[in-house]
Amino acid sequence: MRVLLTIEYNGRNYAGWQRQENALAVQQVLEDALEKMLQQKIVLCASGRTDAGVHAVGQKAHFDYEGTFPLDRIPVASQTILPDDIAILDAVEVSPELHAQYSAKKKTYRYSMYLSRENHPYLNATHAWISYDESYFDFSKMQAACKDLIGTHDFAGFANKGSHVRSTVRTVYDVHAEKNGREISVTITGNGFLYNMVRIIAGTLVYIGLGKRNMGVIKQILDTQNRNLAGKTFPPEGLCLVDVDYGELSPKKE
Amino acid sequence: MRVLLTIEYNGRNYAGWQRQENALAVQQVLEDALEKMLQQKIVLCASGRTDAGVHAVGQKAHFDYEGTFPLDRIPVASQTILPDDIAILDAVEVSPELHAQYSAKKKTYRYSMYLSRENHPYLNATHAWISYDESYFDFSKMQAACKDLIGTHDFAGFANKGSHVRSTVRTVYDVHAEKNGREISVTITGNGFLYNMVRIIAGTLVYIGLGKRNMGVIKQILDTQNRNLAGKTFPPEGLCLVDVDYGELSPKKE
Repeated sequence: MRVLLTIEYNGRNYAGWQRQENALAVQQVLEDALEKMLQQKIVLCASGRTDAGVHAVGQKAHFDYEGTFPLDRIPVASQTILPDDIAILDAVEVSPELHAQYSAKKKTYRYSMYLSRENHPYLNATHAWISYDESYFDFSKMQAACKDLIGTHDFAGFANKGSHVRSTVRTVYDVHAEKNGREISVTITGNGFLYNMVRIIAGTLVYIGLGKRNMGVIKQILDTQNRNLAGKTFPPEGLCLVDVDYGELSPKKE
Repeated sequence: MRVLLTIEYNGRNYAGWQRQENALAVQQVLEDALEKMLQQKIVLCASGRTDAGVHAVGQKAHFDYEGTFPLDRIPVASQTILPDDIAILDAVEVSPELHAQYSAKKKTYRYSMYLSRENHPYLNATHAWISYDESYFDFSKMQAACKDLIGTHDFAGFANKGSHVRSTVRTVYDVHAEKNGREISVTITGNGFLYNMVRIIAGTLVYIGLGKRNMGVIKQILDTQNRNLAGKTFPPEGLCLVDVDYGELSPKKE
């Protein structure tokens, strides 16, 4: 049977999702724990590879399993094997047609940061420190610019080189920014994202709020695909994969 | 001159505030950084010793300084010397009568936690994991019980043995609880706190919400000083020292 896991991790101690030779990856820690529990070689296929330092509260991964271990016991049983910074939240049987990567219809990412000249250690484990003076920042500009991203566009100007994709056209369904004191977040839902796309969008929106880019720059980047017009790629520790939606193939909620 | 620092730290990698022989303390890291910057032996006196794992966003500490380094440059200049999880937010000259510990008039602590049978790694750096089923939890009971703590009482029933104090009478000015999904926090302001008092209060309030203690238990504990009636001492990683108020001696805000 095909099993779909919902996974949460704090990425700061990991070299990203994907198993690799010389650094510890989230995939490896999970596969090792599942093999110990299920007494079977496990290969996880995730919805996508998160980069080093990136977090997830709703990463999805599937594997195929023929044993008898009750799936609903996997979350609690894995707690004693997994480290404190990785957890399996849910394990359910899904259609064998569901492929964690290729069947994904929508993904939601959140970018969390704080704007301050001062380091704020209490926030650093989950927020990126963006070292600008908050008093120059106009949140309403950032908020207003979000809507220009919505729709089907060529997002090549919001991507860094690093992965080969057939098309750089993506659909963004929703973007919204929130501000709570010095903490700012951007939540974005789309049918897929190019390499570093969310981190560049976060950088561009904050640059608009700081007046380092004008209000029309997002439309300009979407028209010209000019990466140089966009803002900096913001650091990985602000990024969190929130949810992956499989449409009709999604497991039913109880 | 007497200098008052405002300090933020994430306590998870430290053996608490106080300098000690065999483990790294926040005080030592700060004193070493200040000595390097100010070229003078520095002894910090904090508002109070936070325990191992406890955080602060508004710890205060004073020291005496006779040099010429501009105080307003200390926060930024110290960033390059201090690790990512400790920061000096502010350094100002204060009256020589101000003693960071003895002049404190009010302190505010916040206890942050999440209630879930599942580990939530994204939250663990700043929140305590309280492993109970959220569906049994009645937040309105917890919220209603807060008011019973307010006032001047003998809080001996909310303290663990571990420090010698002349009196166990304290005044609590304000307590309030907040809930956002599975995240719960309790913020408490008082003229001082006994050993583990905030962590035991958090434990007792959550036990009331879970129905493991009745609504009247806080009054009972204040009447009888019976520690056994109170809830568990909740873990240190949920506790954060938010603010210390020196009344008339407080530095003026610009």
